[in-house]
Amino acid sequence: MEEIIEHPVADGMEERKRSETSSFLESLSEHRSTQSNTHGSTQSSQRLLAYSDALISIIATVMILPVAHTKIGEDEELKESVQVLLTTKIGVYLMTFLIVTVAWAAHVRLFQVIVRIDDCLALLNLACMMLITFLPYTFSLMATFPENHLGILLFCGCVMVIGLIQALVVVYAFSRPFLLKEQIQTSEDLKVYKHHILQVILKVPVMCFLASIFSFIFLQLSYVLLAMVIFLPYISQFLKWCRSKATGEEETPDPEPLYQASEPLSKERLEAFSDGVYAIVATLLILDICEDNVPDRETVKTVYNGSLVSALSDYGPEYLAYFGSFVTVGLLWFVHHSLFLHVTKTTRFMGLLNAFSLAFVGGLPLAYQLTHEFPRNSNNELEAIQVSCVIIFFAGINQLGIWVVALYSEQETLHRYVRYAGRDHIFMLAKLALYPCVALGTFFLTCILSQFSASIFHLMEITVPLAFLVLRLLVRVALAGLRLIFCPERAIPRTVLEEEQDALVA
Amino acid sequence: MEEIIEHPVADGMEERKRSETSSFLESLSEHRSTQSNTHGSTQSSQRLLAYSDALISIIATVMILPVAHTKIGEDEELKESVQVLLTTKIGVYLMTFLIVTVAWAAHVRLFQVIVRIDDCLALLNLACMMLITFLPYTFSLMATFPENHLGILLFCGCVMVIGLIQALVVVYAFSRPFLLKEQIQTSEDLKVYKHHILQVILKVPVMCFLASIFSFIFLQLSYVLLAMVIFLPYISQFLKWCRSKATGEEETPDPEPLYQASEPLSKERLEAFSDGVYAIVATLLILDICEDNVPDRETVKTVYNGSLVSALSDYGPEYLAYFGSFVTVGLLWFVHHSLFLHVTKTTRFMGLLNAFSLAFVGGLPLAYQLTHEFPRNSNNELEAIQVSCVIIFFAGINQLGIWVVALYSEQETLHRYVRYAGRDHIFMLAKLALYPCVALGTFFLTCILSQFSASIFHLMEITVPLAFLVLRLLVRVALAGLRLIFCPERAIPRTVLEEEQDALVA
Repeated sequence: MEEIIEHPVADGMEERKRSETSSFLESLSEHRSTQSNTHGSTQSSQRLLAYSDALISIIATVMILPVAHTKIGEDEELKESVQVLLTTKIGVYLMTFLIVTVAWAAHVRLFQVIVRIDDCLALLNLACMMLITFLPYTFSLMATFPENHLGILLFCGCVMVIGLIQALVVVYAFSRPFLLKEQIQTSEDLKVYKHHILQVILKVPVMCFLASIFSFIFLQLSYVLLAMVIFLPYISQFLKWCRSKATGEEETPDPEPLYQASEPLSKERLEAFSDGVYAIVATLLILDICEDNVPDRETVKTVYNGSLVSALSDYGPEYLAYFGSFVTVGLLWFVHHSLFLHVTKTTRFMGLLNAFSLAFVGGLPLAYQLTHEFPRNSNNELEAIQVSCVIIFFAGINQLGIWVVALYSEQETLHRYVRYAGRDHIFMLAKLALYPCVALGTFFLTCILSQFSASIFHLMEITVPLAFLVLRLLVRVALAGLRLIFCPERAIPRTVLEEEQDALVA
Repeated sequence: MEEIIEHPVADGMEERKRSETSSFLESLSEHRSTQSNTHGSTQSSQRLLAYSDALISIIATVMILPVAHTKIGEDEELKESVQVLLTTKIGVYLMTFLIVTVAWAAHVRLFQVIVRIDDCLALLNLACMMLITFLPYTFSLMATFPENHLGILLFCGCVMVIGLIQALVVVYAFSRPFLLKEQIQTSEDLKVYKHHILQVILKVPVMCFLASIFSFIFLQLSYVLLAMVIFLPYISQFLKWCRSKATGEEETPDPEPLYQASEPLSKERLEAFSDGVYAIVATLLILDICEDNVPDRETVKTVYNGSLVSALSDYGPEYLAYFGSFVTVGLLWFVHHSLFLHVTKTTRFMGLLNAFSLAFVGGLPLAYQLTHEFPRNSNNELEAIQVSCVIIFFAGINQLGIWVVALYSEQETLHRYVRYAGRDHIFMLAKLALYPCVALGTFFLTCILSQFSASIFHLMEITVPLAFLVLRLLVRVALAGLRLIFCPERAIPRTVLEEEQDALVA
């Protein structure tokens, strides 16, 4: 009892102690910047990286718009149009997403070595961003004209210039070692590091240069080269992870620990990138509504006899679809947020699963477009709901995958308090399993019930948050029940005590 | 010499000391969360706030799209269409931007009091976000049907529900005091604070409730009420600031220092919000290009005889416009970034100027659409360039305004090392003055030269970054020149010494 009442006070004191320490640290760093400011303005790179993350995440998600805006005639069967979509536009979207994610991962690695910036680096980075935002366009050119080598040339040109700018960034940063991570700064073989990093960075541009040369001779080969650029790091990473898990050995730490492909990604930047994707997906929906669903003055006068209410009620399903989709995106973000509260370090493989999850989240605007476009109770409507379920299912199952992978190397990647089979553990699992289960359940419902409609689907989406609120209660009841079954003699006193504690805090 | 060589090493050591301290702090806080985790999962609110900032900034900027996508016939004079645009759509855009900024500021204030969250608060916040993202739609309804009270009812309904959710958040957080800022947590009159905050929060919903009742009786009055809701805090803030500066007195600190309208905004959140606006503006451009400017297979076959190069070269001006606009957005971000490196605290008035600056930055997609839409050397093209110049000028001049206001209360708002009339000071001023000067110069050039074209304008935009790189050099030369004129006896040794130092570091 006393402990619980004291809790906030102790908390406050700790906070104050921390803030005192940090203000001391701030004054130290201020002092430092006063000193260093006379020799050119060195800055923390934090905000530059946040801005880059925002830009890259928006660019990765943007190519879903041409997919979502594809007009589907109401007479056609959805299956055919979906097949047309699948073969080209969805392919372009997925490929763009993966390429941009690779570019982002390279950016993360680079700025894990360079931890401070100055004006010159900031400008070089902006130039790099400009070219990255142009990549989706070159990619959609490639997809529309696969037999023409112009698309591949433009793409390779962009990648080569990006590589050169990054090489320039490295050379510049190594000429001013105080910009680097102090682990490298203080090491003696600065040149070895520099050459190693330059080698890694220039590998991709060189492959793109080869691809652009082959595009004149043998076009297919250059596509193969490009695919290697994109997928090779992922595949090798996956194989390495599988091997280390299969043999039960720890991954052998490399003699040169810096700038290895297996180096974990910065958790903050992974979160910032994911936030960007979730935010842009949630707002792409309202963007469509604002542009298309404000009725015309003329239309209201002539068609609806001047009654705005009846005009708006025609758009009713779209508002419902908007709210339903927003809730889904918001809750997937919420699950992601809860998941990464427990994570301390993100391995490359977790990053890969996260990219897959985000790619499916980016597909939600397509689901939104499909589910509100078709007349009620048509066959198409049911199939549109099924597509939505599939997208939500894969977005959720990949998040679950991140958790499972994190549990495999629990010691490194998770906070200490997430004990295996503890309450936090099980609660997290329940949160993560909720969306895949709901999506799977809805999918089978649509197969059985022919009366299922998009409105019911969106209403279901809106009620899911309530499930999250009761989840904690359910998990607690289930745990108590399990204890009651398996160790009845210990169950009662323990749960009562816990219940009491919770009641006091709550 | 020695001092300079030692500089990075000392830097590194300080860094290491800091990281050791912070890892100690981390272990402390980990320990704390292990303890507190048994009583419900309390979390840091940082990522939730970053996500909210991203959502709100995108929503604020989105309403520029209906403006930018307004089709302007090539026959009409631009002036007339611009007037039509100005009266409705630009008005809607600006009003939406301001309303959303007000909602954002309220959100910032609320979460400066509530510094930790749990699942329940996270879900309530998401619900709040969903309604905020719906505000632009209700606003465009109001603008299209100003004589119908449905728009105003919807808007007021949204605002009232947002207010109620925020009130719920406050009540919930005060029932679990460990979620609050420890300054409040440890104070004895918790109830007084709670009532005060609830009063402030519920003021706006009550005014909206009145407005929605008046909308049935006397529609104009309800618009007046709404305008008061939006502008009153800004106007009163501005007047208060003017009065305090005119009388030379310090702003009298209120007896209750918390949750006052004059409380400074969190600098981190202001930066995050601005980053979101800059990022979405930069990517709205490529979004348009990816959707509209990939040529059709059929068109290429029939119109261009299968030559993709000639088809793409027709889009040439658009790529140029894209790169030009991206550079402009990127550099405005860069100036903003440099500016806020020197700022320690953002007052409300600085926040207001920042909102104005961002509102003009949000107008850049319109400038982009205008400048690449018209035939070469037409009168319209010149006017489109002038509109662009006006937008860039006001975006830049408001940033300059932030700096000027910050200098007025230098002690509180700026870092100590930014000495008045020091080199950093002058360099910052030069950076900030660059865009307004370039925009003004271009504006007058378009008045004199009739041969000025959009391509030249975009090329100019692309060359501005070089100006930033030579700016530092120019400032140094100018300072040396001034010293040479005003105190020639001291000038030479000092500059030579400085030059030497810089050369050694560089």
